[in-house]
Amino acid sequence: MDKQVVRRFEKIVGAGNVMAEEADRQAYAYDAAVLDSVVPALVVRPETVAQLGQVVALCNESGLPLTVRGSGTNLSGGTIPSSTESVVVVTNGLARILEINTEDLYAVVEPGVITAQFAAAVAEKGLFYPPDPGSQTVSTLGGNVAENAGGLRGLKYGVTKDYVMGVEFFDVNGELVKSGARTVKCATGFNLSDLMVGSEGLLGVFARLILKLIPPPKASRAMTAVFDSVEKASETVSAIIADRIVPCTLEFLDNFTIRTVEDFRHAGLPVDAEALLLIEVDGHPAEVAEDAEKILEICRKKGAVQVQAAGSVEEKELIWQARRDALPALARLKPTTVLEDATVPRSRIPDMVKKIKEISRIYNLDIGTFGHAGDGNLHPTILTDKRNHEEFARVEKAIDEIFEAALAMGGTLSGEHGIGLAKRKYMEKETSRGTIFYSRKLKQTFDPKNILNPGKMFGA
Amino acid sequence: MDKQVVRRFEKIVGAGNVMAEEADRQAYAYDAAVLDSVVPALVVRPETVAQLGQVVALCNESGLPLTVRGSGTNLSGGTIPSSTESVVVVTNGLARILEINTEDLYAVVEPGVITAQFAAAVAEKGLFYPPDPGSQTVSTLGGNVAENAGGLRGLKYGVTKDYVMGVEFFDVNGELVKSGARTVKCATGFNLSDLMVGSEGLLGVFARLILKLIPPPKASRAMTAVFDSVEKASETVSAIIADRIVPCTLEFLDNFTIRTVEDFRHAGLPVDAEALLLIEVDGHPAEVAEDAEKILEICRKKGAVQVQAAGSVEEKELIWQARRDALPALARLKPTTVLEDATVPRSRIPDMVKKIKEISRIYNLDIGTFGHAGDGNLHPTILTDKRNHEEFARVEKAIDEIFEAALAMGGTLSGEHGIGLAKRKYMEKETSRGTIFYSRKLKQTFDPKNILNPGKMFGA
Repeated sequence: MDKQVVRRFEKIVGAGNVMAEEADRQAYAYDAAVLDSVVPALVVRPETVAQLGQVVALCNESGLPLTVRGSGTNLSGGTIPSSTESVVVVTNGLARILEINTEDLYAVVEPGVITAQFAAAVAEKGLFYPPDPGSQTVSTLGGNVAENAGGLRGLKYGVTKDYVMGVEFFDVNGELVKSGARTVKCATGFNLSDLMVGSEGLLGVFARLILKLIPPPKASRAMTAVFDSVEKASETVSAIIADRIVPCTLEFLDNFTIRTVEDFRHAGLPVDAEALLLIEVDGHPAEVAEDAEKILEICRKKGAVQVQAAGSVEEKELIWQARRDALPALARLKPTTVLEDATVPRSRIPDMVKKIKEISRIYNLDIGTFGHAGDGNLHPTILTDKRNHEEFARVEKAIDEIFEAALAMGGTLSGEHGIGLAKRKYMEKETSRGTIFYSRKLKQTFDPKNILNPGKMFGA
Repeated sequence: MDKQVVRRFEKIVGAGNVMAEEADRQAYAYDAAVLDSVVPALVVRPETVAQLGQVVALCNESGLPLTVRGSGTNLSGGTIPSSTESVVVVTNGLARILEINTEDLYAVVEPGVITAQFAAAVAEKGLFYPPDPGSQTVSTLGGNVAENAGGLRGLKYGVTKDYVMGVEFFDVNGELVKSGARTVKCATGFNLSDLMVGSEGLLGVFARLILKLIPPPKASRAMTAVFDSVEKASETVSAIIADRIVPCTLEFLDNFTIRTVEDFRHAGLPVDAEALLLIEVDGHPAEVAEDAEKILEICRKKGAVQVQAAGSVEEKELIWQARRDALPALARLKPTTVLEDATVPRSRIPDMVKKIKEISRIYNLDIGTFGHAGDGNLHPTILTDKRNHEEFARVEKAIDEIFEAALAMGGTLSGEHGIGLAKRKYMEKETSRGTIFYSRKLKQTFDPKNILNPGKMFGA
């Protein structure tokens, strides 16, 4: 990169916060998606919101593509630099919790705050921030908002967008745009905050976030149910919802995943089971007790081979450890793990699981399926080796078929991982020509030089 | 209007659905805001979504400004035609509930469905659609989404935007844009559905809405608490929230409103009280019983003169009747009723109520204040006569001061009524130059001829 420009970045953020050496830049070349890495030209680390705005303006002025990066846990390539000309702006210098308001139930944060650390700070004040993406111990709130991250509690508590009350962001010229409010109700102006949610860094750069907090549930109870068929497990999910119970978490593991987790942890999982449901209800103690009783009965009625409620905190912890182990355990088996998140209306889960099994057979691939059965957000996880080109070609075909199946069932390409680079070619299939046209126009309007994370979502 | 163009509209929707006579057009010249009426050039009533798209395209082609109108209950002038050249598109021919999905908890509707009729249809299937704007028996879902309508249940259940899962809309060229999904989680593409929420008809015309449904609460309990000072009532609100109780409804009436409602209905309201809180909790029966007990105790502790829980459905109905009477009772007193909805963080309610009283004194105006204390969304209601120019000038100054006070307290111009024509001059004060610039650009991009409800929100 031009030395003059580097010096200008140094002038804004200080020399210690500009990384131009290749060894440093290498670390910002990839994210958690299985895609080719791209080494950026420069890495810049602002420490104040004012510096952030100046960095954005300088990138625009110099025509340098800009990718904002939290912790790089993105699963769709959203934080992979667009080109070797790219400037990566890391947000870990903007990690202050500015306010936790316990009277008005909101918090104001900078984008680089780590999700789990924020949730803990909120909990310490007796409140609750529900979104819990799988990567929460590492991921940043800015990244969560940019990708509209989900998590295990989506069914009852919704996803990140349900907790965004306001977003202050820089437009491409470095001008600060304020939207939303500190009040529960706000009908002032265009809903730009929510437009920013899930915008994957294409429309602006977050300066501050106003997030909604709620009182925590007073009690909770976790349960497991073992099934000898996927159909029975799926019917159980539907029956629970039909009984007007909304568990906070309702997770599914298929046989392949159960066996792999058991190999990894030896926690005594039922390796012969075709499906395992992990369920948690929360709320008022009386409600929790009643709902748990009802759920256990529904599981039995629907033919569960074994049903169990956690009797202690440790037992509950064991249940969720099994779920958290799913991805790392699967990832051990082969060099490359492709984690998908095509989502269907929850009533179509049996069809989707069947379809994934069929696809796994046709393309002769190992696919472990687990995920958020309660909200139809499954994670078929393909185990492969990217270097094996013949096999990887089959993987790509399998992914194509998974997406087509999800869309045919009235679902969506991405429940919580975003489009990024990974799924952009499928966009028009789900939406319409009009949607692509409208969206591209939005992008062109707010980023005429195409420097804000270019190439993501819709292609170049 | 040009006869040729009228004929083209007739060709699309049928001659019976095009109103060109002045007597007919008069009925579409105003909404519920206190603003001058504007008689449109033509009123068009599409009966199918396909017709709607063609009407939009024809307006754009002919350069005719277009205002979509549900039931015209808008309180900020959003449905007043922009000019005498305007085409008003009424949506009461697009009033089909297309699907209520009890397994996947969503509904698909056309924009002209009446809010309360929809809520009733949903309730019949054992589900719950919480948003309950004051005009729900008349208002349409399309209008609710366009204005991000609130209601009495905002505190616990949120507002309309919290129930919008997807919006299909026509862009200005009549091209269909699809966004959102039928799944709880969706991270596919820009969040255009939420951009449409609260967009006041400026960015597109709604074709279909996908709305989220939830299971209904199993029980509820209503209470009243009478106070001899506004401060005590406000402190009670804060103490309830601080105790981690979130009532579904938490309403406030000031002395002026109490006396007026009592004059109107003779229901035995405490006319000497300085403030009345109307509170309802819902949820699991055990939780409801506990929370109600706690709330009654908090009210007593904070110095309520009288505290009472409704013992029967009839008693509960009486409580909410008093609240529903507030606006019609106040409106009887004088020819013109200006209902405002500036909103503050709930902890600032005592300051806001005090400020409104002061303003009422300074400008010698009758202002009744009631509203959603739980979410800081008060409705100071100014009683006046628009034909009295001297007085109305004082009203306008009072409104200016109310807005300034709300913004100074970290609040927002509009909690639930929108900006429309009524508040556009205040927009930049709340947001920033960047916000106005970004928003205007958005408008210009998607509506280059400025025909979609022009002049609203930002001015011409």
